[in-house]
Amino acid sequence: MLEARMSEAGTLKKVLDAVRDLISDANWECNEDGISLQAMDNSHVALVTVHLSQDAFEPYRCDRNMPLGINLGSLTKVIKCAKDNDLVTLKADDSGESLGLTFESSNTDRIGEYSIKLLDIDQEHLGIPTTQYDSVISMPSAEFQRICRDLSQLGESIRVEASKEGIRFSVEGDVGKASVLLKQSSGRGIEREEESEEEEEEEEEEDDDEDVKPNVDDEDNDDVKPKDKKRKSAKGGNKKKKAKKAKKEVVEDGVSISLQQQVSLTFSLKYLNNFTRSTPLSSRVTLSLSKDIPLLLEYEFGAGHIKYFLAPKIGDEDAE
Amino acid sequence: MLEARMSEAGTLKKVLDAVRDLISDANWECNEDGISLQAMDNSHVALVTVHLSQDAFEPYRCDRNMPLGINLGSLTKVIKCAKDNDLVTLKADDSGESLGLTFESSNTDRIGEYSIKLLDIDQEHLGIPTTQYDSVISMPSAEFQRICRDLSQLGESIRVEASKEGIRFSVEGDVGKASVLLKQSSGRGIEREEESEEEEEEEEEEDDDEDVKPNVDDEDNDDVKPKDKKRKSAKGGNKKKKAKKAKKEVVEDGVSISLQQQVSLTFSLKYLNNFTRSTPLSSRVTLSLSKDIPLLLEYEFGAGHIKYFLAPKIGDEDAE
Amino acid sequence: MLEARMSEAGTLKKVLDAVRDLISDANWECNEDGISLQAMDNSHVALVTVHLSQDAFEPYRCDRNMPLGINLGSLTKVIKCAKDNDLVTLKADDSGESLGLTFESSNTDRIGEYSIKLLDIDQEHLGIPTTQYDSVISMPSAEFQRICRDLSQLGESIRVEASKEGIRFSVEGDVGKASVLLKQSSGRGIEREEESEEEEEEEEEEDDDEDVKPNVDDEDNDDVKPKDKKRKSAKGGNKKKKAKKAKKEVVEDGVSISLQQQVSLTFSLKYLNNFTRSTPLSSRVTLSLSKDIPLLLEYEFGAGHIKYFLAPKIGDEDAE
Repeated sequence: MLEARMSEAGTLKKVLDAVRDLISDANWECNEDGISLQAMDNSHVALVTVHLSQDAFEPYRCDRNMPLGINLGSLTKVIKCAKDNDLVTLKADDSGESLGLTFESSNTDRIGEYSIKLLDIDQEHLGIPTTQYDSVISMPSAEFQRICRDLSQLGESIRVEASKEGIRFSVEGDVGKASVLLKQSSGRGIEREEESEEEEEEEEEEDDDEDVKPNVDDEDNDDVKPKDKKRKSAKGGNKKKKAKKAKKEVVEDGVSISLQQQVSLTFSLKYLNNFTRSTPLSSRVTLSLSKDIPLLLEYEFGAGHIKYFLAPKIGDEDAE
Repeated sequence: MLEARMSEAGTLKKVLDAVRDLISDANWECNEDGISLQAMDNSHVALVTVHLSQDAFEPYRCDRNMPLGINLGSLTKVIKCAKDNDLVTLKADDSGESLGLTFESSNTDRIGEYSIKLLDIDQEHLGIPTTQYDSVISMPSAEFQRICRDLSQLGESIRVEASKEGIRFSVEGDVGKASVLLKQSSGRGIEREEESEEEEEEEEEEDDDEDVKPNVDDEDNDDVKPKDKKRKSAKGGNKKKKAKKAKKEVVEDGVSISLQQQVSLTFSLKYLNNFTRSTPLSSRVTLSLSKDIPLLLEYEFGAGHIKYFLAPKIGDEDAE
Repeated sequence: MLEARMSEAGTLKKVLDAVRDLISDANWECNEDGISLQAMDNSHVALVTVHLSQDAFEPYRCDRNMPLGINLGSLTKVIKCAKDNDLVTLKADDSGESLGLTFESSNTDRIGEYSIKLLDIDQEHLGIPTTQYDSVISMPSAEFQRICRDLSQLGESIRVEASKEGIRFSVEGDVGKASVLLKQSSGRGIEREEESEEEEEEEEEEDDDEDVKPNVDDEDNDDVKPKDKKRKSAKGGNKKKKAKKAKKEVVEDGVSISLQQQVSLTFSLKYLNNFTRSTPLSSRVTLSLSKDIPLLLEYEFGAGHIKYFLAPKIGDEDAE
């Protein structure tokens, strides 16, 4: 049985907006850590994971692991009936027949009760290998969204190049060509910045002991892989350093780049544009890039995170 | 001959917006009381009445009863040429060939003169029997609009149930089911609230002596019916009480229910959604419900009112 | 070689918005005076000229006259990638292969570099004879836009009549007829108003010595015509008087009419509506009218001007 109450229906709305065009049906896995979703997009090109931490709910009660098979279009229709600041309570009994949602507004005598039929979805859970990325870029999510939208006017593929100079996005098409360069923010690397970190970030550091940010999250820990060991060892070593760098990423408007190696990869703009539907969830986005490895695009927000994985286009490291 | 001047063209715009999708051609009846329209919607399911009181015009001059047959689409096109705060003057001579509209703005030297060809519409005037409704609910019009819009995502028919608990709207569809409960506002029934009533409301009470609010308006008094007598007698009796209740309905954000008997009726959401086009005209809406009797949905505004009548779906009082 | 830098990309955006639906491909002529465009609209009915003065750029460098053949749709796509307050730099080398655009934002470390392929467009430059117009009307551009938009609901042709009374726009259609009269603003003709003229206006007077406002601009001076001489002589004579009148046009919200002779001309609303896309560029618009002569519609803004020429409909001076 699941019973979980969240104080802001608006967060659920934004999460649904972020994934509903990519995925039609998916299982939301409920366990003691929270509620998670992992699914390939409808065209089986991109992988999406969503995690809503149990901390985001109060109370949160989940007696046993249970999948909630849901049509995201239907869930979106229901969620839209809530106001952004409504209290929302999710309920499912062990029969697995339906998911109940209750929306309550704090200042009016209004209660909305909704029930969605659950689906039996046969879905395999993919193990995502953890990776040391060559380059990890943190930037304002709105800026990333704008670049993807702007450049998709001029071409279908975007080249992303990370170097000491900054991060460059470029496109070529029939009309001509375009390139947008974001220079790394100047504050980078100054030690005393660490003092001014905010609470939220400190919390992140604690998490980091369990989960190196540039790596793939451990919601998939069940699939223990050889690489996982390598990762463990990394924790003691250069990981400490990385955590410090990660803290500096949080210059609210700036761009920070953690660079092990220059990278240059090409991606489909259609998918990136779709991923930027997460923009309202977080003011920052993190791009993790390695040669021949899928891009990891990550939006962290108070209640959890959304991650998108997208393989680069083949032959992208040479001239297109 | 008609000559009538209104200080806010915006009101006419809103009235047209409220009816133009339901009705294509209709007669506006002009007489000494003001300008009225009564028409079945295009699919002959719902009945709509509009009344613009002569009080809303200054000057208002109408020498003899005359129908103005108008295509509401054409009138809408013309009305849209006025700014909301333009002075608008309606003019028709006895030839019945055209309706003239003049729009003047107070602060610029601008005069717009429009003329619409009148139509010869053969329309019978329906007598609407006056009714004592089992339940009369007053609620914020925006809340009613939102519920109709939200629930139409999930189904086509809405069940409306009024009880002591409050008013419940529910829907069932392929996706699942939904129900929204609005509890009656707590202030109900406290005597001293009467003191804090605003001017507008006091005016309403005076009107009430002539026109019981929960009943059908007397723009149709020409068709005197047996029921009308019953209504007259009602004026002395429980009417007085009702008028007091009516005053309490005006808790601006709240829900008030005057309940003679529990009711549960089902209606087509498509029509209700159409009716909520009147929302910009009034912050409140009144629903009057009785078993086997058409719903009366009423929007009152400074210059008059709009009423919609819609028959319940058959078999609605049992399970759907 | 061209190199020109403008401080507000927003102006270029608005200019493109104003012409891109009328013209698909056109040559931008660059010379020491600035950047100009002259083209018939796609249906070869209206003539459009755009001029961006070299004063609007800093620096502005153009070594030799060169045409930049550009698809306006493509240029629009690129310009949309700039923010309104971005610095924009245009660059073209003598090869004539491409136009480079650089967008820089002042407060972020962001540089966008775009390149558009140039086209080889065979375009003849039309000489526009200068004209003494019977009537020159200056009015708020938003008011003109609104009238064109409103009246196009009711008909396809608009009659424009200028008289001492004011300027009247009228339309007749199936629905009925409409006429909007704008009276001349009362301040007209009072001598002391001249004192209160603002700087911008004084600048205009200086310009006037070179370029009589109600006449066609001299971007087409290459085609010297007999009429041009007449114009030159006019400069000393009634020109002085006209310049004074021109100053009075600048009652920001008012309508001013300089009337040599009454005129009544009919135009296609479809074109006028298209021309009003220039409205965001200037709060005022000037209409210059003469019997049997194309209308001149002129929007002046800080960086230059846009002019539209449209022939009246035949037979318009009689009843339609």
